Amino acid sequence: MKTVSTQPLNAQAFAPYGQVLECAGDSIAINQGNCQRFHDLAELELDGGETGISLFHAKLRELPYVLDLMERHPLGSQAFVPMSPDGFLILVADDDNGTPVNILAFVSAPNQGINLRKNVWHGVLTPLSGSGMFVVVDRIGDGNNLEEYSLVDPITVLAAQ
Amino acid sequence: MKTVSTQPLNAQAFAPYGQVLECAGDSIAINQGNCQRFHDLAELELDGGETGISLFHAKLRELPYVLDLMERHPLGSQAFVPMSPDGFLILVADDDNGTPVNILAFVSAPNQGINLRKNVWHGVLTPLSGSGMFVVVDRIGDGNNLEEYSLVDPITVLAAQ
Repeated sequence: MKTVSTQPLNAQAFAPYGQVLECAGDSIAINQGNCQRFHDLAELELDGGETGISLFHAKLRELPYVLDLMERHPLGSQAFVPMSPDGFLILVADDDNGTPVNILAFVSAPNQGINLRKNVWHGVLTPLSGSGMFVVVDRIGDGNNLEEYSLVDPITVLAAQ
Repeated sequence: MKTVSTQPLNAQAFAPYGQVLECAGDSIAINQGNCQRFHDLAELELDGGETGISLFHAKLRELPYVLDLMERHPLGSQAFVPMSPDGFLILVADDDNGTPVNILAFVSAPNQGINLRKNVWHGVLTPLSGSGMFVVVDRIGDGNNLEEYSLVDPITVLAAQ
């Protein structure tokens, strides 16, 4: 079986797939200096829909993890921020005429979230520890916004050495 | 000094001020049954702006807490979801011709967030424990979206007996 090893999530490596939502870079002091605002971190794509806030409660997974299904959302971006300070596994791929290729595996640091660009192939939500709860900000609206792809050859995701 | 005692946050009591974002009620099973989606929990108000996702890192506070400043956002709603499973203090008030009146103090349970309706008077972000980090979903756009009110008679917020 093919394998892929995880790498730490960082903004530069993740840029082709979306934005890392984290307390990094410039911030704005608000509330008389008692709060730092890391402002407008995501590039939301809604394609005629509206923004919605949902909560997801996902089962915890572990490595090695067998990836056999990927999905993408052709009409909008999708942001995930964990509600406990724990890392999660993020699987993304490039597209080759409707087929996910060049699969990458990231593991976030505590207090990092992501915003996936629309139409980026990704795995399902796979928390590795913590509560398994996430805030999700994505597109609400009409139209078919889900495409799935079953991998003929599943891939085993291994912890970084 | 006037006092107000905290009460547990729940959807019914909070309804005049906004929505409680929590894993309650119906959910949708996704990802082959490995994830529950609590769908579209917030009533976003954007008044000609766009949605943005920001992260806030706020100083921890403790009770009793002296409330001397309230604010409101006339152009949009504002959602706060904690990034650690901890409660936070939520101060809201009714409006009487530009003055906040009938101040209420809620304390959330772990894994509860809120979405404040536009133009609802509220206190600044006051986490009581945990990381002090929050996902914030609010309006990004032109126009003056902040009004502040300094209380002539500050109020002491006490823990519920």
